[in-house]
Amino acid sequence: MRTLYHYPLHPGCRAVRICFAEKKLKLREIEIDPWEPDDTFLALAVEEVPPVLTDRIQSGDVTIVGTQAICEYADEASSRTPLLPGERHERAEIRRLCNWFGQRFDHEVNALILPEKLETVRLGGTPDTTALREGRAALRDHLVYIGWLLEQRDGLAGPAFTLADIITAAHLSCLDYLGEVNWRQFPLVQDWYQRIKSRPSFRPLLNDRIPGIRPPQHYADLDF
Amino acid sequence: MRTLYHYPLHPGCRAVRICFAEKKLKLREIEIDPWEPDDTFLALAVEEVPPVLTDRIQSGDVTIVGTQAICEYADEASSRTPLLPGERHERAEIRRLCNWFGQRFDHEVNALILPEKLETVRLGGTPDTTALREGRAALRDHLVYIGWLLEQRDGLAGPAFTLADIITAAHLSCLDYLGEVNWRQFPLVQDWYQRIKSRPSFRPLLNDRIPGIRPPQHYADLDF
Repeated sequence: MRTLYHYPLHPGCRAVRICFAEKKLKLREIEIDPWEPDDTFLALAVEEVPPVLTDRIQSGDVTIVGTQAICEYADEASSRTPLLPGERHERAEIRRLCNWFGQRFDHEVNALILPEKLETVRLGGTPDTTALREGRAALRDHLVYIGWLLEQRDGLAGPAFTLADIITAAHLSCLDYLGEVNWRQFPLVQDWYQRIKSRPSFRPLLNDRIPGIRPPQHYADLDF
Repeated sequence: MRTLYHYPLHPGCRAVRICFAEKKLKLREIEIDPWEPDDTFLALAVEEVPPVLTDRIQSGDVTIVGTQAICEYADEASSRTPLLPGERHERAEIRRLCNWFGQRFDHEVNALILPEKLETVRLGGTPDTTALREGRAALRDHLVYIGWLLEQRDGLAGPAFTLADIITAAHLSCLDYLGEVNWRQFPLVQDWYQRIKSRPSFRPLLNDRIPGIRPPQHYADLDF
């Protein structure tokens, strides 16, 4: 049985869950507490952070670690809904965007906003407003870039649905849960996100709830 | 014609050069100054940092950006020396290690040591000793981990030569140029690095020289 160790508001974990749903591959999900991971989880991977996948294959039990590695592992498991479609230069562009949003966006935006807000709810106190301000400014720049891409290409990496859509939407969905995305200023991005979030693979994520934080009304609304 | 925009002491750029050499694919190399990149380079990629590859294919000119994307693009270009060999769970482990060394090691070690030393030579002044101390402590931890992997597996990701070897060796080679790696404390890692650096694909890198910094005697020695 395939098991994913995840945290519901972790962008990479969300991306992995969407990938397996797109592939129609069953996944047992075990929620872990990234602030106090238990020993079973810590023993799985030197990374000590989710997402971590365990799988039983013919040759025995395997552990797959990290968003990109797990998503491509899922993609190679089944030919249904190819997540890196096209020629090799098109796959390279998808991987570039996965890296841009999975690493750079994560570093410049999510790393400044998500832990601040989640830890404030968890531990009390007030968030670091400088970090929030910086993260929000970077978010605006990234939304402008996403809008520019969509204008050029009728899709993030082109017209086809790809892993780049999944990873980018997974990141934005965490910020959206926290009411951080001003969609009205970015209508092209809003249209694109609405298309992605309407996919059946995305729906279970919209039902996740974090104790102490209620998402805005539009969060789970497919026609927001 | 395939053209790589690179900086000689950038780990990702080195990894890309090794990949193309392993694949026996010709590559024109244009050195860029990461501190003062020119407009031609800046117009190529929103990332504004190397490595950036341009290629002419049947459908036109393409630009491929980022270490992992370019390395996998090279891998898919030719079946010679597969860089992600094996079953899909083995490829996932290679991608995990590429991510570990390409991102985490880069962040914890290279980001603290390389710019400090290179900018000191470039601009004068003295390096930030706190950053250097932190980077060196993290480097020791990572060398212990590499040694542990080699002990378990007779290779980083297993006995086969893979992209994980290339990316890890490329990172260590930059630190080695600066005399930062105490090989004697890590004999297994030294043996492995010696094997990798003896490959013909690695040789051209050992001839790179950065103005104002001479590498230690053992740097280009294949039998150090």
